[in-house]
Amino acid sequence: MEPLVLSALSKPDRNAETPLAVQLYRDLLEAIRSGRARGRLPSSRVAAAALGLSRNTVNAAYELLRAEGAVAIRPGAAPEILPPAAAAPAPTEVEASPGPGRRGQAWAAGRSRSGGGIMAPGHPDEALFPRDDWAMHLRRAARRRLGRAFAYGEYSGLPALREVLARRLAADRGMQVTPDQILITPGSQASLALIALTLADPGDTALIEEPGYPGARAAFRGAGLTTLPLTVDAEGADVSAAARARLTYLTPANQYPMGHRLSLRRRAEALDHARASDGFLVEDDYDSEFHWHGREIAALQGMAPERVIALGTAAKALMPALRIGWIVAPSGLAGPLRAAQRNLGLAANVHAQAALAEFMETGRYRAHLRRIAKVYGERGRALAAALRSLPGIDVADPSGGVQIGFRLPESREAAALTALHSAGFGTAALSDYCLGRPQEGLITGFAEATPERIAHFTATLRRVLPTR
Amino acid sequence: MEPLVLSALSKPDRNAETPLAVQLYRDLLEAIRSGRARGRLPSSRVAAAALGLSRNTVNAAYELLRAEGAVAIRPGAAPEILPPAAAAPAPTEVEASPGPGRRGQAWAAGRSRSGGGIMAPGHPDEALFPRDDWAMHLRRAARRRLGRAFAYGEYSGLPALREVLARRLAADRGMQVTPDQILITPGSQASLALIALTLADPGDTALIEEPGYPGARAAFRGAGLTTLPLTVDAEGADVSAAARARLTYLTPANQYPMGHRLSLRRRAEALDHARASDGFLVEDDYDSEFHWHGREIAALQGMAPERVIALGTAAKALMPALRIGWIVAPSGLAGPLRAAQRNLGLAANVHAQAALAEFMETGRYRAHLRRIAKVYGERGRALAAALRSLPGIDVADPSGGVQIGFRLPESREAAALTALHSAGFGTAALSDYCLGRPQEGLITGFAEATPERIAHFTATLRRVLPTR
Repeated sequence: MEPLVLSALSKPDRNAETPLAVQLYRDLLEAIRSGRARGRLPSSRVAAAALGLSRNTVNAAYELLRAEGAVAIRPGAAPEILPPAAAAPAPTEVEASPGPGRRGQAWAAGRSRSGGGIMAPGHPDEALFPRDDWAMHLRRAARRRLGRAFAYGEYSGLPALREVLARRLAADRGMQVTPDQILITPGSQASLALIALTLADPGDTALIEEPGYPGARAAFRGAGLTTLPLTVDAEGADVSAAARARLTYLTPANQYPMGHRLSLRRRAEALDHARASDGFLVEDDYDSEFHWHGREIAALQGMAPERVIALGTAAKALMPALRIGWIVAPSGLAGPLRAAQRNLGLAANVHAQAALAEFMETGRYRAHLRRIAKVYGERGRALAAALRSLPGIDVADPSGGVQIGFRLPESREAAALTALHSAGFGTAALSDYCLGRPQEGLITGFAEATPERIAHFTATLRRVLPTR
Repeated sequence: MEPLVLSALSKPDRNAETPLAVQLYRDLLEAIRSGRARGRLPSSRVAAAALGLSRNTVNAAYELLRAEGAVAIRPGAAPEILPPAAAAPAPTEVEASPGPGRRGQAWAAGRSRSGGGIMAPGHPDEALFPRDDWAMHLRRAARRRLGRAFAYGEYSGLPALREVLARRLAADRGMQVTPDQILITPGSQASLALIALTLADPGDTALIEEPGYPGARAAFRGAGLTTLPLTVDAEGADVSAAARARLTYLTPANQYPMGHRLSLRRRAEALDHARASDGFLVEDDYDSEFHWHGREIAALQGMAPERVIALGTAAKALMPALRIGWIVAPSGLAGPLRAAQRNLGLAANVHAQAALAEFMETGRYRAHLRRIAKVYGERGRALAAALRSLPGIDVADPSGGVQIGFRLPESREAAALTALHSAGFGTAALSDYCLGRPQEGLITGFAEATPERIAHFTATLRRVLPTR
């Protein structure tokens, strides 16, 4: 090795976290890879003196090089640099990466333009999150021994959470469900991906409400399904003219985003259609945990537990970033879904699950739901009333959830979206929620709709609407 | 409605969580669906008297039925039951569910037999988990305002965690990485699924070390890839005879499960092979955060950051059930991977991320790594020494990680597995880690290998081995 090379090595940094031997090893390895060092390394005595290191440190670095196959060490001889393998690249080489595959492009397709601002669809209000309570439950959960749940033993969800959920869903939502049918996932989007990848094959047909939830469309298209629109009217989605489909995505309790409820007649028709198609209904019960009083309704799942896969989430009642959702699976499918969940890695954090189970058991969850339902109900009605004062806007009071959708007069969507995003709102375009002929309109959250924000929102929107 | 039906309704339960009106509504809805109730419901006065409820309660139940489309209500008349839609099923109907699709069967395919007992491969020791520290960090994280991270704004990971990780991976592992290249996922299995679904198309080839990690095989097969085995020897995986491949899965730091290190020559050859294939190397750095002293080595990613996708996890150093892993993506792929991650729902809990970031920042993580590396090193060497005392077993001291693999004399694997599972050990079969000709052997964790357990393990195994 040329003395030049030895002196060109970086001076080891005694204050760095990385041990001196490892620093030297890395420098030497780069010198070897780049071809700057050839032949033999200096003896450890020479190198130690030149670099101001102990011989032990130099020998440790040489041992690392030997283990890596970069040098050969024989007693009494200086380490011999082995020929670098053909074309071993220098670490500094700049190289372009291949792109994602065709399927990767489908999975990466965009969903909707919501601008990332305030009052985005589906966003609860962080100010109402019960932080101190949650912190207490999390702390308790973390100090407990987990046993089987510590590693991979309860991959599909903590038994305590699955049990309290099964009781709640039976009592509050009229579901026919045992804890074994429940899978805890990192949220509704994970549930949709698991279902699309597991219960349908590429090229199968999936029906989606029109307008409908873009997350479902993204999961189904990523999974290679053909997505077709389902007409929605005041009775909810209408399957009477629909093609046979393996999966039919529905939001029966509160149509997303237009807020209709699926009528009993339409529910029966959707079930008939699923049976005739040898398919499944996917019931996204995304916000029905806090419909306000007078809207308690049974879940579709209770009518046909072997034909309906129900989805729920803690995102709206608590916080999206908890990343906790659940699937209520037909009993015959729970086993295959659990196995696939494991291979897809779709598991939720154990402490958040334990905290949620305790939060539900102790009644704090129910008290929290009552509190936010009251606030969100007031805010939603206030926003709807303010919107109705605008020319050409017709929107009913919301009866649940955290967002409302409404149509706009023709050719105003793009201007409205630009104006609202500039004003800091995370509003979405209704046309982004459509598969077929785009409908113009907006979707806005109302959980964060304070009176000031409502005034700002409507004033911004008014400026882009035609005068009456 | 027949008086018979009215009296056959369940008595409302005043102590139930479900409001009386909702209980009555559900009972009536079932009577209507099943055909037991036809014609008209009794007036609210009559029903209230018969059931011992207030008229307001009965009227609320009727209003729910009307909203559901089950009855029509006209002022001054008793509610009229609408004809149930054709073939509306009774909730009690027993119906078989269709099975999963072909792709679903691939995703649900089993991985390995490990019996769920103690000392399973990849399991750290729960007793060494820093519970009190973690509880404190979690509590602090939960009490903080999250802002953008509260909902969907930091879906690919908290900036604080991505920043501290990027610094650590550069300093400790020699990676070339910025925070923007890092995606936080719910663990390594999620990372593998994301990569397989996004960077490869169905029918593409993936190479897997032989023996190799069954989780990688499960993800690649679920994603429809053709998986081929890569020979492994003392220098690690050998690509010299391998077919062109879109993905090559490697464990360069500590071959899983046999414990070899990929030599510098083999690293260069693997990179050449990936370039010639227009493919990627997937470097699973699953346990290199706590190789014990003298084994610090640079990650393959540092040699070719645009060609290598590196995976890491908090599962071995802390706890699998935290469900936190990370991907270091080539900079050009980080964007598409993030978009696909969102559509697949592969996100990690925010409080666990915040706790981990703080744990790393404050130096507690490094102190914890030192502590467990010492304990696990001692246990691993003790287990290896005990195993070497058995006839026909040859196994080197582990130099990192939490498990070792070793070969067994011919035709002893099945008996050994049965005996160890019966004795409560979560040992895995080496043949389950093979794609090609099965190799007989065992894989066992050593993080929980106390002296008593080592004695029990070796005594159990000795009984099924041939005498020397």
